[in-house]
Amino acid sequence: MTKLIALITDFGLQDIYVGVIKGVIASINSHIPILDITHHIPPQDLISASFCLKSAYPYFPSETIYLAVVDPGVGSTRKAIALRAEHETYFIGPDNGLFTGILDLIPILEARELTNRVYWRSPEPSLTFHGRDIFASVAAHLASGVPFETLGEKIPLPSLVRLPLAPYQLTADGVVGVIQYIDYFGNLITNIPASLVSNKSWSVSLFNTTIAQSSTYSEQPQGELLALISSNGWVEIAINGGSAAQKLQLNLGDSIYVKFKD
Amino acid sequence: MTKLIALITDFGLQDIYVGVIKGVIASINSHIPILDITHHIPPQDLISASFCLKSAYPYFPSETIYLAVVDPGVGSTRKAIALRAEHETYFIGPDNGLFTGILDLIPILEARELTNRVYWRSPEPSLTFHGRDIFASVAAHLASGVPFETLGEKIPLPSLVRLPLAPYQLTADGVVGVIQYIDYFGNLITNIPASLVSNKSWSVSLFNTTIAQSSTYSEQPQGELLALISSNGWVEIAINGGSAAQKLQLNLGDSIYVKFKD
Amino acid sequence: MTKLIALITDFGLQDIYVGVIKGVIASINSHIPILDITHHIPPQDLISASFCLKSAYPYFPSETIYLAVVDPGVGSTRKAIALRAEHETYFIGPDNGLFTGILDLIPILEARELTNRVYWRSPEPSLTFHGRDIFASVAAHLASGVPFETLGEKIPLPSLVRLPLAPYQLTADGVVGVIQYIDYFGNLITNIPASLVSNKSWSVSLFNTTIAQSSTYSEQPQGELLALISSNGWVEIAINGGSAAQKLQLNLGDSIYVKFKD
Repeated sequence: MTKLIALITDFGLQDIYVGVIKGVIASINSHIPILDITHHIPPQDLISASFCLKSAYPYFPSETIYLAVVDPGVGSTRKAIALRAEHETYFIGPDNGLFTGILDLIPILEARELTNRVYWRSPEPSLTFHGRDIFASVAAHLASGVPFETLGEKIPLPSLVRLPLAPYQLTADGVVGVIQYIDYFGNLITNIPASLVSNKSWSVSLFNTTIAQSSTYSEQPQGELLALISSNGWVEIAINGGSAAQKLQLNLGDSIYVKFKD
Repeated sequence: MTKLIALITDFGLQDIYVGVIKGVIASINSHIPILDITHHIPPQDLISASFCLKSAYPYFPSETIYLAVVDPGVGSTRKAIALRAEHETYFIGPDNGLFTGILDLIPILEARELTNRVYWRSPEPSLTFHGRDIFASVAAHLASGVPFETLGEKIPLPSLVRLPLAPYQLTADGVVGVIQYIDYFGNLITNIPASLVSNKSWSVSLFNTTIAQSSTYSEQPQGELLALISSNGWVEIAINGGSAAQKLQLNLGDSIYVKFKD
Repeated sequence: MTKLIALITDFGLQDIYVGVIKGVIASINSHIPILDITHHIPPQDLISASFCLKSAYPYFPSETIYLAVVDPGVGSTRKAIALRAEHETYFIGPDNGLFTGILDLIPILEARELTNRVYWRSPEPSLTFHGRDIFASVAAHLASGVPFETLGEKIPLPSLVRLPLAPYQLTADGVVGVIQYIDYFGNLITNIPASLVSNKSWSVSLFNTTIAQSSTYSEQPQGELLALISSNGWVEIAINGGSAAQKLQLNLGDSIYVKFKD
C-alpha cells in the first residue's frame, strides 16, 4: 500500500524544481499520491518553514510522509535525515531546524541519517539539489514500502538541530509574544496560544491604542483592526477586508502585547 | 465510486491553507482526485469568483463536486450550502453570491444548508476557516458516496444570494457592456456574449479611437490593440504580445462600446 | 494502462486556464495522473520554455506525455504537432520552436501534425485556446491508449521549427557563453555545460572582477558571489543567501566569460 507524500519547500512555482521533485517520485512509483502543502516558504526561512509544517500537520492523514526541503546548507555538513512518529508518520529533509515545530508538537520515536545510497537517485548526488537527488528519492522508496530502518544509521534524538524560537512571556496582567507568521491576507499570527486567553476577556495593546477582541473577521466594520483566535489556534491581528501587515507595518519577530481585562 | 473535487478559492498558494484543505479531504478519503481550478481569485472578490467558476464549469466532467471558498463573511450568519445539478454535479461553499454565475448558467435542482454536523470535520468548527472545517469535509464525504439529502435541511432556491451584476445594453448600432474580468495576460474580458456579435462586422470604440475586430492575437501586428471573441465566448480586448490592461489603464466594471458596421 | 501527462505552460496560475486544461483531460479520462512542471514560463517566452522542458525531461518516467503550451501564434498557420521518442515518450504542443531543447537532447523517432479532429475537444476549436481544444484533448486520448499514428499526418523531422539559440564559444583560455535562464532565487544559469569545465580549475570574469569557483552555495560566506555547477549541469553564478540577478543586474542573453586557470 503506497503512502501519501506531502510536500513543503521554498522553491516557489516559477521554476521546474517542484515539477522535477514530483517527476523523481513518479519515476520510482507512479502510484504515490502527492499533495502540496506550500512551495512559497520565503527563501531559506527556516522559522516560517517550521511554523507552516507544524501548522499543516494536524490536518493530514496519519500515514503521511512529509517531504520538507528548505535547505540553505545543501552540500555542507548538515545531515540528511528521516524521522519516524507514531501511526506510520514520517518526516524527511535536512537536519537544520525546520523540524523544530514538529519536535515540539508530537513524539518522535526514531531518527535516521540518510546514509544508504541505495535509495538515493544516484550515488553521486548534485551538491546543490539534495531535494531531488536524496530527499525525493528516499521519500518515494519509503512510500513504496521500504523499511524505515534501512534508510541509514540511527542518530540520537537529542542531536537533532532546533531553532532558537522566541518564547511568549506571562506578565502581571497579560502575555507578551511575537509575530511568528504573516499570511497572504496580511494577517499577523502571534506565538501566543489560544489556551492562554480562552475563557478570558482580552485585547491587544499596540502603539498606545487598543485592538478589540473579536470572534470573526466580519464582526468588526470593514477596514477596522481586530484581534481574534486564528484558525490554527493562535492570537492573530487582522483587518476585516484588508491587510493588517500593510496598515501596521509590522514584521516577523515584532512584539505583541495581549492585555487581560479585570 | 469516488467523485472528483475541483477547488476554487481566494487563498493564494503562499500559505498552507490550500494544502490543509487537501489534507482534510485526503484524511477522509485518500482516493478522491483533486483538481485546482485556481486559488488566485482576488481576495474576497465574489464577482471574479462567480465569473471564474461559471467559466471553468463547462470543461470539467459532469460528476464533479465544485468546492468554492471565497468567504468574507465566514463565521457570520451567511449560510453554508450545497447545490445539486443534473448528472451528479454538486457545488459546495458559502451562500454569498459566488454561485451567481452558475445559477445563471445551469438548472439547479436542489439546495441544502450544511446543518448536519456529522459531516463536518469537528462539531465545533473554527469561526474563521469553514473552508477547512465544514466545506472540505462535507465535499469529501459527498465525494465518497454520502447522499446529498443527508447534508442538511432543504432550502428554497429563490432564497439563494445573487450578486447584482451589471448587464450589457443594446443600443441603436451596437452594445454597451463592462469589463467583467482581467486575466494574467492583461486581456480585458467584457460581459458582451459572442452570440450578440457573431455573423456581424463590428469594432470597439474607446477614447475616440477604434479597435479593429480580429480572429486571433497574431492576426494583428505585434503591440497592436485588437478586439476578438475570447476562448470562453465573450468580446475581449487584447494586444498581440502585450497587456491591454496595462496599455489602456482600464479596470473591472469600466464600460466598453461595441459598434456594429453598416 | 494510462500514461502520465506532465504540463508546462506560460498560463500562470492566476486564471482558470490551467484548471480548464486539467478539466478537459479528466473529462476524457479521470484516471490520468497529471503533474505540473511549471506554469510560470514568462509569457510567450519560447527560449525559456525550451530550456525548462529540456531541463525537466531527465527526471520524469519514460512513459510520460509532455503537454507543452506556450503558443503566441495560436490560430495562425503554425502547426499543432506530436513527437514520439523511444520508450513511449511523447511531446504535444505547437510547432514554434519550444521543442528545440528536446530535439537537441534526445532522438525523436516520428512527428505527426494533429490533423485528426476526432481527438480534438471539438471539430471547431477556439481560435485562441488550442491548449484546451486541441493539445489537452489529444494528450488525454494518447494517454488513454489511442495509437500515435492516428493523431494525424506524418511530417518530416527536418521541417520542425527550431529556435536560433546563442552558442557558447571556446577561446584560448576559456569559454564565452550567455545566460540562458534566471531562476526564482536569482541564480544565473549559463549555456556553458559542466563537461567543458570539469576536472579543471576555473573562475568567472565579470566587470573586471573574478568570481571564484565553488562546490556549493554555503561554501562561500553569506552574501558572497560564487560560480558553481548547477544541479542541471551548467555553469551558474549565484550568491550564498541572496539573488545574483539582483546584485549584478544581468539579463537573459548577457555574456559570461569562464576563464581556465593555468
